[in-house]
Amino acid sequence: MALSTKHLLGIKDLQKEDIELILQTAVQFKEVLQRPVKKVPSLRDVTVVNLFYENSTRTRISFELAEKRLSADTINFTASGSSAAKGETLLDTVNNILSMKVDMVVMRHSASGAPHFLSKHIPAAIINAGDGINEHPTQALLDAFSMQEKFGSLKGLKVAIIGDIMHSRVALSNIYLLHKMGAEVMVAGPPTLIPPYIQQAFGVKVTYQVKEALQWCDVANVLRIQLERQNQPLFSSLREYNLSFGIRREVLENLGKEIVIMHPGPINRGVELDSDVADGPFSIILHQVENGVAVRMAALYLLSPHNH
Amino acid sequence: MALSTKHLLGIKDLQKEDIELILQTAVQFKEVLQRPVKKVPSLRDVTVVNLFYENSTRTRISFELAEKRLSADTINFTASGSSAAKGETLLDTVNNILSMKVDMVVMRHSASGAPHFLSKHIPAAIINAGDGINEHPTQALLDAFSMQEKFGSLKGLKVAIIGDIMHSRVALSNIYLLHKMGAEVMVAGPPTLIPPYIQQAFGVKVTYQVKEALQWCDVANVLRIQLERQNQPLFSSLREYNLSFGIRREVLENLGKEIVIMHPGPINRGVELDSDVADGPFSIILHQVENGVAVRMAALYLLSPHNH
Amino acid sequence: MALSTKHLLGIKDLQKEDIELILQTAVQFKEVLQRPVKKVPSLRDVTVVNLFYENSTRTRISFELAEKRLSADTINFTASGSSAAKGETLLDTVNNILSMKVDMVVMRHSASGAPHFLSKHIPAAIINAGDGINEHPTQALLDAFSMQEKFGSLKGLKVAIIGDIMHSRVALSNIYLLHKMGAEVMVAGPPTLIPPYIQQAFGVKVTYQVKEALQWCDVANVLRIQLERQNQPLFSSLREYNLSFGIRREVLENLGKEIVIMHPGPINRGVELDSDVADGPFSIILHQVENGVAVRMAALYLLSPHNH
Repeated sequence: MALSTKHLLGIKDLQKEDIELILQTAVQFKEVLQRPVKKVPSLRDVTVVNLFYENSTRTRISFELAEKRLSADTINFTASGSSAAKGETLLDTVNNILSMKVDMVVMRHSASGAPHFLSKHIPAAIINAGDGINEHPTQALLDAFSMQEKFGSLKGLKVAIIGDIMHSRVALSNIYLLHKMGAEVMVAGPPTLIPPYIQQAFGVKVTYQVKEALQWCDVANVLRIQLERQNQPLFSSLREYNLSFGIRREVLENLGKEIVIMHPGPINRGVELDSDVADGPFSIILHQVENGVAVRMAALYLLSPHNH
Repeated sequence: MALSTKHLLGIKDLQKEDIELILQTAVQFKEVLQRPVKKVPSLRDVTVVNLFYENSTRTRISFELAEKRLSADTINFTASGSSAAKGETLLDTVNNILSMKVDMVVMRHSASGAPHFLSKHIPAAIINAGDGINEHPTQALLDAFSMQEKFGSLKGLKVAIIGDIMHSRVALSNIYLLHKMGAEVMVAGPPTLIPPYIQQAFGVKVTYQVKEALQWCDVANVLRIQLERQNQPLFSSLREYNLSFGIRREVLENLGKEIVIMHPGPINRGVELDSDVADGPFSIILHQVENGVAVRMAALYLLSPHNH
Repeated sequence: MALSTKHLLGIKDLQKEDIELILQTAVQFKEVLQRPVKKVPSLRDVTVVNLFYENSTRTRISFELAEKRLSADTINFTASGSSAAKGETLLDTVNNILSMKVDMVVMRHSASGAPHFLSKHIPAAIINAGDGINEHPTQALLDAFSMQEKFGSLKGLKVAIIGDIMHSRVALSNIYLLHKMGAEVMVAGPPTLIPPYIQQAFGVKVTYQVKEALQWCDVANVLRIQLERQNQPLFSSLREYNLSFGIRREVLENLGKEIVIMHPGPINRGVELDSDVADGPFSIILHQVENGVAVRMAALYLLSPHNH
């Protein structure tokens, strides 16, 4: 079995069968990660370059670990300390790296569409590790893996995505994936952070009341308030955001049912999520992180030259 | 044989037998490092993350080499270019990394006690690579290894620690270790850089005259003046420090005996140590650096999951 | 066969036979790089440190890939985030790293002569990856490899080097190499960027008219305008430079013959080279990048402890 695509640019481009194949493959790699010997030789002799034009601790480390578990050789490239400062174009940089016989590119970039542009001009497989406010496909896949692990199936699942929907590539990738897999999605947050067209364009439910979303859903995927990505402060204080849209323990305890709490990290504790929720019994946040390595191993494996 | 502790947070927590075990194990690893093939498979399938929240060339490279000689997989994390800039808490960062199935953490942090805090909340083995003004245990162990190599035993050895005692984690770790191993310690430096309580609290001799310390000791461990760590200039000039407390060749030649010169590096040449002393026949500074890799291999090996 | 030198500091120090040996060895490594399995065990158990005191994407990645293809262990050191900030001297840094049993040093530094200075004081093999405005020997070797691949031999070849000759270590290394191998060299560029003594000192032809150089040559090696290295703007605009000295397609098409276009990268597109030239049929720029890995593998292999 093989993916219908040569790259992993976004969930939008995937078939349902692609998503299922990645998740099934990730199940096997997760079993590998439970063993004392966590390494497999699948990508021996494959070289992967991690091209990170935006800061990211966890995503970069997660990909690097996934690559090393697969026995790939890895090269790290970050924008600071690089030709990016010399004004070299993205395409030149990547073409140069590929000329050195690099097989795969994992890429994070602040410009939406940067990996799609590259994919039209280079022969190597590209995995999008987050592009601007567009997509972050491996995050949606690890979220899906974590929900499937918890509930058995995504079909009919009710997922609320809460927070800054406007600027979130995680929200967009999750909406695409959940709909393809038969789940229902509601987005919740302050009106200024929810695009007005989203209901018509994407068929999601919309609410400006977090409580309504929590009462409706099986899973709440709580997004990080991306303070650094907003040009102007949207709230007089983070405390105000916490009071209106943060998930606090007493709110969860008064729901009359159990829901699962997810977060793509890093958490602003006391802002979008209180610590006793983040670390509480309903949180599967650290499972998401663990599953991220397995899902990325699956994506790398399925897109590697050995499988194409 | 195994260590009595799961982490290496500080010399303070170690038994004398722990120190002896690390030093004996390091002797064997030093023999490995003399061979053409310097690699052993001891930590194959162990993943170590190097978490450096403070700049450090030599300590980071020394640990990374030790890990690679032991065949471990290594992940480097430095605070710049990371979620640290996004305000993620230390505990979240480490929990996330550990969720990715990382086995050991080597950590440097500007806050005293940071690794101790972590050790109460995470399951992985932590090695403290320097925390604030508290401890730097592997430095004290490599200093001990180097003195033992030179003198056969630490018992009864007279060690002078010279310089900025107040802000030095190297001094504190050395004092703990030398006392546990039966050596005598004198600290020397300007009164403003020696804590007033140190004689009563730690049982060390104190002098404000470097010459007195040199005449008394077998070994002078000369500390770096940590200019970047002091809020206000303590001397009208570095030249003045050199004249009062720097180790100059003529001072050593007029002692009427030979003493060994050590320094944890990086050296401020012409400040605390003149170049003809640093590079002179009594200096074992580069042996310290070499022994650092062997000692760190020993610590990593003894704390690894394969031994617990 | 062995090189006549222990280090690769500059082309100036090499014998013609050294250059031939490196190029022949690189031919074999290039064959390795065409295979599915690109790794050879030649430098197993050799540790190489990449000491980059100046930013460089492609050169650092090219060396790191060359080292990994040879199965060496690699340690990366960049000046930021290091003891360089603490004012440690270059010699102390390198001595410390070597004491940790590192076998080879690849070094880039903004000071001309920095690797030559080091080579007088340390036992390890040094490869100069660019020192100030002095030399960049592996660039000249990969340029030579690429020309030899295209033309069969360098003997009698006419090579024009075009652009900022004054500040270019690439130009200098190329001039040394091409003359040793029997090629002819003409330099071209604005008078302010060509040293007045160059004709007498190096026996090269000089022109201030790019068209004259293009009409004369078989190969044009077009240099990057190093905007960041000039203290004052030399042109009222980059557009003006492009019109006077940039290589544009219509100029090439009106030559009445075919010439080969080279560039060491990164390209300032639209300044020294138009995009339809850089990506056009006469450009071998990406071959240069590919050959860089093979040539660096050859240099590392020939200078490694296994061959000395």
